[in-house]
Amino acid sequence: MTKTLIFGHKNPDTDTICSAIAYAALKKELGDEVEPVRLGEINGETNYALNQFNVPSPRFVQSVSNEVSEVILVDHNERQQSADDIDNVKVKEVIDHHRISNFETSDPLYYRAEPVGCTATILNKLYKEQGVTIQKDIAGLMLSAIISDSLLFKSPTCTEEDITAAHELARIAEVDPQSYGLEMLKAGTDLSSKTEDELISLDAKEFTMGAKKVVVAQVNTVDTEEVLIRKEQLESAIKNTVDEKSLDLFVFVITDILTSDSTILSLGDDAKAAETAFGVKLTNNTAVLKGVVSRKKQIVPQLTEALQG
Amino acid sequence: MTKTLIFGHKNPDTDTICSAIAYAALKKELGDEVEPVRLGEINGETNYALNQFNVPSPRFVQSVSNEVSEVILVDHNERQQSADDIDNVKVKEVIDHHRISNFETSDPLYYRAEPVGCTATILNKLYKEQGVTIQKDIAGLMLSAIISDSLLFKSPTCTEEDITAAHELARIAEVDPQSYGLEMLKAGTDLSSKTEDELISLDAKEFTMGAKKVVVAQVNTVDTEEVLIRKEQLESAIKNTVDEKSLDLFVFVITDILTSDSTILSLGDDAKAAETAFGVKLTNNTAVLKGVVSRKKQIVPQLTEALQG
Repeated sequence: MTKTLIFGHKNPDTDTICSAIAYAALKKELGDEVEPVRLGEINGETNYALNQFNVPSPRFVQSVSNEVSEVILVDHNERQQSADDIDNVKVKEVIDHHRISNFETSDPLYYRAEPVGCTATILNKLYKEQGVTIQKDIAGLMLSAIISDSLLFKSPTCTEEDITAAHELARIAEVDPQSYGLEMLKAGTDLSSKTEDELISLDAKEFTMGAKKVVVAQVNTVDTEEVLIRKEQLESAIKNTVDEKSLDLFVFVITDILTSDSTILSLGDDAKAAETAFGVKLTNNTAVLKGVVSRKKQIVPQLTEALQG
Repeated sequence: MTKTLIFGHKNPDTDTICSAIAYAALKKELGDEVEPVRLGEINGETNYALNQFNVPSPRFVQSVSNEVSEVILVDHNERQQSADDIDNVKVKEVIDHHRISNFETSDPLYYRAEPVGCTATILNKLYKEQGVTIQKDIAGLMLSAIISDSLLFKSPTCTEEDITAAHELARIAEVDPQSYGLEMLKAGTDLSSKTEDELISLDAKEFTMGAKKVVVAQVNTVDTEEVLIRKEQLESAIKNTVDEKSLDLFVFVITDILTSDSTILSLGDDAKAAETAFGVKLTNNTAVLKGVVSRKKQIVPQLTEALQG
């Protein structure tokens, strides 16, 4: 059996990195030859988690088909979020918690998606189904993934299953989820050292919505004003990206992890779609979305509907 | 909570019908309001299984969005194989063992696909994961589904998991898989009463392969000659379908369940794709494919590649 690479989406977040590592650990226990890899830079929050549990960062790869013929995807399925050469390899498995879109195979595969808040919550089940014990460091990373995706259980994407899994994992990892979680989230909000180009690409995901090409990028912060002070430069960076990638819409979402509100910057020919989608009025391209923290549940479906309507 | 309909593909086979019934039974045990339904006529083989275990046939429906807003798909995911108005309802779950194609959602969902020979094998796992005991009649139907999809364990799609599941289910159903299985398969091969139009649509599935529209229809028999004697009329029926549906290719597969070989009839502008796909020469539109019994594993991927190349 030849090696299989396991990876999450581009612009990796904590769930994508930690789930790749955790699923690779499970597969290794089952005797498979696998390696977790990553398609982009590790962010500050993920870095905090990896350091905390003393796990090395997965290897960065630019392409996958030069190394392997089979891959396993975690935390994504949409082709444009995956490796550039994803069409040249066989996708053997997918473990995910997102909508299914722009994904197609010619052969049957193992596809496990559940409408839970985090890929790691599904992995926690897979470990149990396979009867494999989760190691302490891996449990810590899986807990970190759940805290990240659920914004410490505050996101509407967070389910009972996520909370139960997080507490099981916290016991194995021997940390307190609340205090560890807040520290980890804060580690991800240090945006001062980032350029505007970095801010808008750090956690950017591209979507096909109807006939439109859309990017939704998100940053977490404990101080929205600190980000908005750079509004002019952010807009110019976003406009460049819209031109370069021929986007119809770019929505930049600044999420306050303490208040659980978001401020958006909406640019592109279809910028007004944000008004329809969220029932708000854009002022100087921005609007506040009260209680909105989840791109997946509170932003993407609404924008998709607005752009298809 | 409102009712959810559970159904398999058009031109239902034994796995599609029995898995809809079996998954509905599990969901009901878990307290959900569900009803198994079917999108087409019950075939002779499935009818034999339903009679044997005394289970009524699911209700036939022409459309689903007039009744419900949410559905669960079993044994298929491709839109063209599903209810005509599938785009007007929300697909809440999919339990399947086929490739993923022409399938898209705007929200996260529960998607459980495994590369096993039969949907019922996955359902057997789900019953265990939920800690629900399988009733005797339901076990009989699930066993029937595995026997049907695996041609009594002879198809290359059949995995160890299918065989293990079948034997577990046979014990609950209190039947001998071999003798019951052969009788059931034979009940599905009585083709004499069928018109040519019925023969080519009985188990027909439509696929999008590259830019091409393809139908692959399959019948099981214990006497290939008995089918081929009607070759001329079959060809004329197929040509009509090709015209009506603007197909690029129609492959009719006659599978001998005793020898495990198939004879194909390939028609349409892309008829020659069958020669590339299977490394054979068509003579009067036909060719024998030795050892080929599985549409999913031995026909569809090969045709897809030939048509994309």
